[in-house]
Amino acid sequence: MEDIKEICNFIFDFVEKYGYKGIVVGISGGLDSAVTAALCVKAIGSEKVFGLIMPERDSSKDTVKDAKLVCEWLKIPFKVKSITPILRKIGVYKLFPPARLFPRSFQERYVLNKWRKLSQDPFIDDLLSKGNDQFLKGLAFYRIKHRVRMCLLYFEAEQRGYAVASTENKTEYLTGLYVKWGDDCGDISPIAHLYKTQVFDLAKKLDVPEKIIAKAPSPDLIPGIDDEFALGMSYQELDQILVAIETGKDLSTFPTEKVNRVKKILEAAKVRNLRNYRIERFE
Amino acid sequence: MEDIKEICNFIFDFVEKYGYKGIVVGISGGLDSAVTAALCVKAIGSEKVFGLIMPERDSSKDTVKDAKLVCEWLKIPFKVKSITPILRKIGVYKLFPPARLFPRSFQERYVLNKWRKLSQDPFIDDLLSKGNDQFLKGLAFYRIKHRVRMCLLYFEAEQRGYAVASTENKTEYLTGLYVKWGDDCGDISPIAHLYKTQVFDLAKKLDVPEKIIAKAPSPDLIPGIDDEFALGMSYQELDQILVAIETGKDLSTFPTEKVNRVKKILEAAKVRNLRNYRIERFE
Repeated sequence: MEDIKEICNFIFDFVEKYGYKGIVVGISGGLDSAVTAALCVKAIGSEKVFGLIMPERDSSKDTVKDAKLVCEWLKIPFKVKSITPILRKIGVYKLFPPARLFPRSFQERYVLNKWRKLSQDPFIDDLLSKGNDQFLKGLAFYRIKHRVRMCLLYFEAEQRGYAVASTENKTEYLTGLYVKWGDDCGDISPIAHLYKTQVFDLAKKLDVPEKIIAKAPSPDLIPGIDDEFALGMSYQELDQILVAIETGKDLSTFPTEKVNRVKKILEAAKVRNLRNYRIERFE
Repeated sequence: MEDIKEICNFIFDFVEKYGYKGIVVGISGGLDSAVTAALCVKAIGSEKVFGLIMPERDSSKDTVKDAKLVCEWLKIPFKVKSITPILRKIGVYKLFPPARLFPRSFQERYVLNKWRKLSQDPFIDDLLSKGNDQFLKGLAFYRIKHRVRMCLLYFEAEQRGYAVASTENKTEYLTGLYVKWGDDCGDISPIAHLYKTQVFDLAKKLDVPEKIIAKAPSPDLIPGIDDEFALGMSYQELDQILVAIETGKDLSTFPTEKVNRVKKILEAAKVRNLRNYRIERFE
């Protein structure tokens, strides 16, 4: 486990080196952004960290409340900017009209059933960007949300001379559980080297509010789809297998079908993790 | 000079390997997107290449006309989608209200003067994202335009099962003349290995319409600011010096002040070209 002090020094040195006046963090009400923002606050002080809360039509009803809770806990200045009007202008909601008359629990069950019917293995098909027309529409529909958020994070940061912190963690990166050119984009990634379960441990050390620690991790992009549902196993199981693969440990202690599932995800995630396919890399 | 056939094979193989149904290209009316789209058409056929034209309030009055000319020349399906209403919803135009009552030439002179007054060396300060409040506002103002375009390119591509082609060239990349997380983003970059002057030569070989070849290269983001103005020299001079530096050739045959300028740009562009500052890279 990376020491908190070491990450904070890294953040502090980065800001100093490139002359940023502060850091903008997109606060989702989830664990990763709470931990990222908390580390930034410890590194450069709460007055130099700005929280941007960007709910939209399909966000969980707790999103804004929980995100505010995080900002208030950290005593950082923040702003709530709904991206609904922007997504509407782009035509995003036309793809999946609202189901306002139905209760949330019904919506969630409906989406889950639909998701299952659209593809035999939606998470793998998502990583490969393959599927029938309805499935592809779904990909376009949810991915643009995080990309628009990235645009707004930079719009805020650039006016202030701030850097943008990405909240991506190592489990998300390895398994492709992120939006390419969305939540993976930033100037600094303070928790990119940590597995999700390590972020969870760090959250407890940092005294992140219990409500944030206790909620189920979710990208909050499509009602009813949370991380562990998409992955097909718990983060606990997933990270243990990922660590075992990384360190070359014996995999026979894990259930075979889980190991095979992780290997299948890692293979498909290579496509997601492709950046820009060039003839020649000159970087 | 890379052979046209070789680039086309590269594009064809990429599309086959990852199972894309086609390629979306953002058509700006400029040289790079015309050449990129022409190569895609040669590789996979005009019916599988889709052109997206995305003008906004500050686009040159020829943008849509020239972009349509390119799409019609290539016989590719295309769509014009103004990003003005989206930028307005984000609040972009509030930063610099319109100057509708003034003729374009007056606007351009006004912007140029303002740009010069805001910073001693605007291009270098831009690469470093440093300057006074007004200058920073300008950076946020123009950069979000290319980022929103990237969002729309993916929104179109993902619904179709297409890849997005980035139109970035090598000169732009090396000198940082692009928007980070904007026009650098894509699934494939067919001309990323070519200097601007090589793209120019390729355009002639590909019979790109004369009007597109003849116009001054411009990012078309701020009235009056074109590439060679921003860079402080012509592409001809710039590329010769870049090639000389890359191949370790004698630099004394070039004017000293130009060589120093290029070196200064390359140094500052390293900051732009930083992707995500991580403690540890696991890619």
